[in-house]
Amino acid sequence: MGPEEFRAAGHELIDWIADYRARIPQLPVQAQVGPGEVAGKLPGNAPEEAEPFSRLLADLESIVVPGVTQVQHPRYFGWFPANSTLSSALGDLASAGLGALGITWQSAPALTEVEEVVVEWLRELTALPRSWRGVIQDTASTACLVALLAARERATDYSEVRGGLQAESAPLTVYTTEHAHSSVLKAVALAGFGRDNFRLVGVDPVTYAMRPEALAAAIEADVAAGRRPAAVVVNVGTTGTTAVDPLAEIVPLAQRYGMWVHVDAAMAGSALLLPEMRWLVDGVEGADSLNWNPHKWLGTLGDCSLLYVADPAHLIRVMSTNPSYLRSAVDGEVTQYKDWGIPLGRRFRALKLWFHLRLDGVEAIRARLRRDLDNARWLADQVSSAPGWRVLAPVGLQTVVLRHEPAGLVSDAGAVLDAGALNAHTLAWADSVNGSGAALVTPSLLDGAWSVRVSIGAETTERSDVEQLWRLLQHAATIAEAG
Amino acid sequence: MGPEEFRAAGHELIDWIADYRARIPQLPVQAQVGPGEVAGKLPGNAPEEAEPFSRLLADLESIVVPGVTQVQHPRYFGWFPANSTLSSALGDLASAGLGALGITWQSAPALTEVEEVVVEWLRELTALPRSWRGVIQDTASTACLVALLAARERATDYSEVRGGLQAESAPLTVYTTEHAHSSVLKAVALAGFGRDNFRLVGVDPVTYAMRPEALAAAIEADVAAGRRPAAVVVNVGTTGTTAVDPLAEIVPLAQRYGMWVHVDAAMAGSALLLPEMRWLVDGVEGADSLNWNPHKWLGTLGDCSLLYVADPAHLIRVMSTNPSYLRSAVDGEVTQYKDWGIPLGRRFRALKLWFHLRLDGVEAIRARLRRDLDNARWLADQVSSAPGWRVLAPVGLQTVVLRHEPAGLVSDAGAVLDAGALNAHTLAWADSVNGSGAALVTPSLLDGAWSVRVSIGAETTERSDVEQLWRLLQHAATIAEAG
Repeated sequence: MGPEEFRAAGHELIDWIADYRARIPQLPVQAQVGPGEVAGKLPGNAPEEAEPFSRLLADLESIVVPGVTQVQHPRYFGWFPANSTLSSALGDLASAGLGALGITWQSAPALTEVEEVVVEWLRELTALPRSWRGVIQDTASTACLVALLAARERATDYSEVRGGLQAESAPLTVYTTEHAHSSVLKAVALAGFGRDNFRLVGVDPVTYAMRPEALAAAIEADVAAGRRPAAVVVNVGTTGTTAVDPLAEIVPLAQRYGMWVHVDAAMAGSALLLPEMRWLVDGVEGADSLNWNPHKWLGTLGDCSLLYVADPAHLIRVMSTNPSYLRSAVDGEVTQYKDWGIPLGRRFRALKLWFHLRLDGVEAIRARLRRDLDNARWLADQVSSAPGWRVLAPVGLQTVVLRHEPAGLVSDAGAVLDAGALNAHTLAWADSVNGSGAALVTPSLLDGAWSVRVSIGAETTERSDVEQLWRLLQHAATIAEAG
Repeated sequence: MGPEEFRAAGHELIDWIADYRARIPQLPVQAQVGPGEVAGKLPGNAPEEAEPFSRLLADLESIVVPGVTQVQHPRYFGWFPANSTLSSALGDLASAGLGALGITWQSAPALTEVEEVVVEWLRELTALPRSWRGVIQDTASTACLVALLAARERATDYSEVRGGLQAESAPLTVYTTEHAHSSVLKAVALAGFGRDNFRLVGVDPVTYAMRPEALAAAIEADVAAGRRPAAVVVNVGTTGTTAVDPLAEIVPLAQRYGMWVHVDAAMAGSALLLPEMRWLVDGVEGADSLNWNPHKWLGTLGDCSLLYVADPAHLIRVMSTNPSYLRSAVDGEVTQYKDWGIPLGRRFRALKLWFHLRLDGVEAIRARLRRDLDNARWLADQVSSAPGWRVLAPVGLQTVVLRHEPAGLVSDAGAVLDAGALNAHTLAWADSVNGSGAALVTPSLLDGAWSVRVSIGAETTERSDVEQLWRLLQHAATIAEAG
């Protein structure tokens, strides 16, 4: 496709996207297709001849749109916000148009340097330590793996250049809580630590935050048994309840044993743009790395996950490669992001952050984040004061974990009396909300029973949408209780 | 930014991209900026207030374009082709506009199912075994790491659920050649095998391909020493010289020891669309995984790397997670790509492949690949027959590795007599070509001396561009020899 065909098709597609975004509120939130339904509409072979753009646009409309859950919908309250702001989409389009090759500084100096500048802008906006350096990764899963690989190698004095992890005598151990994201266990497994060496430290029964004394006891038991504590993953805003582990109390414990402290603030990191929320990471200056995802609540188109490190030398020592065909005369003077993560090549992802911040402005972004925190507090207040409803975890961020409790299923103190009936009821009304297409919420297990997470923060979600959701929840629970 | 502002800015950006692509031939190929030059033009802080789109466009033009090496230029012959076709850029724009959330099948059924269909289209186009399944990864580096993690876990009967790699007694070993991409050593290091357990098997001195008897000897020595051969990475089209390891001879050896066979065809995979090039992977039905990058020569906008596996059960067993908030009623009936790689979330990358294949058509893509192979043979013929020039490796694909050899520096048989002078000469004329902006080639070490790689295959490179390059090379070498 040449530039002039692209021009014509591109204008059509821009109009299609603008129209699509405008009509999202009229679409069902949850995709209404069954397994295989989308694939069944597609031909079994690639076309030999070029197809006209109109046919692609028609398929986008009739096959793809009904086949995706509308997470840009104002009544999307599922999982976590996954805002894809149109300002950042323009930055991504610029990246595609440029078609730059991000393998070394030399292959695209601007790709590296805009990334350096933009991650520094965000470091400053989130008040992370001045000496920390940042890099864009694809996701929090990868960022956590990268941090644990650096932790593993630092703890073994860089065993990768010798016999690797398999030559180490005393096993390395890693700590977090059972509320950590599933990607933490996955990173532990992929890094080769083994599940036997992964400790789920006890949490406070009300806040679901890690208990530092339980961490201390776990570390001491491992040390006494000849194991070597290597890393702790501190959860700032867990997926289940947005619980916040006490970083300031964990850091000194970890430092005593030379452990790597990785802060997983994948969702909550956006809140650090608000000075009143910086308490979330009190003590961070003693940590080794922190990750958060602008592609969640902040709204930079995914994939865009920020990994900040106190000392990039650890990443570089673990990740660097230096084949002859990638060398250049300026290597000592520039940042080579290929040595800060797993892939050699990288997209010009900095452009979407750059466009997002510049086209929307930080003031407006902060106002939107505050709007969402306020909406979550409002919903929590409604739920708390409604008979038969309960808020199950502190609402410190923008997610409300709640349950409707028909008479007799839960004691006044909150003890579940009939788990089977309660779970069936919860899943029934949540499914009915989701199946209706009017809103989307996420059922989730908490203390062994199903609850419902309402995660507020889609870019277009206003108070009226939260009010409407609250009416929908009450209606669905009433019907489910009656039926 | 709302839909109407996006519409206006989007039209401007589409026009800018079309104009930019059309004038690339007039731009210098290599970025002409020094370290820090781009960063120095950017403000130190993110803006509080939204900026007008015109300012972003002006910065793209004046700061970003001069700051990237123009790999879409018709005289870009560096590294490997990194084509970003405009058809695939439209698919990527559609993905950005949709803003879908790719964490589970449920979060975006079409994101999963279009990917399944498109990777199956490409499996069929490349004649890989019918039973193999594919998944899009970001890069070949990650794909190789994923394959080696699967190999590690299969070889240890899934040690990740027990003590991990650190509890294994006999070390696992991994094999490839010194011509493997640097990402293979990196993957070995990250997977925890350790450099001591990584074997660089000898190659044929003319073809640079792995010698199966050297592999057999290395494996047998390790087994005799109590080590456990776990994986071999077979290079189909190395970065240095596009050497092709003899897969059909390697497979039976590897199978004898239960080793995982990963085929790294990152660049060469595109050639598999041509029936006459399928010999590259003769024997592939006995391998376990194969990776190639449509974001190289084929021209699908990066990141877009295909990983095919004979049995996805190994990936899933190693990579799967199942937190309550990601469960759905259809889990058993659908593909969950989160369990096929490292990240939980994925972009709707299948759209760019889908758009690319449909808007360009397979016939035209094949014609372009054949054009490039033909251009490489033409250049190799010119170089071979020109006095003082030598082609240093077989030209089986689209890369020509060459050298200009002033009298007295190399013997008639090709032995380097004065390495210092030869290297200085080679780097001098290559740097002068690159510095001129007229074309870009990549110096690379081969058998310890600098050579120059001419990698043909930019989307817009025609025979006339290769002819022009050949004149440039001869001119630069003459000047360097005289000076």
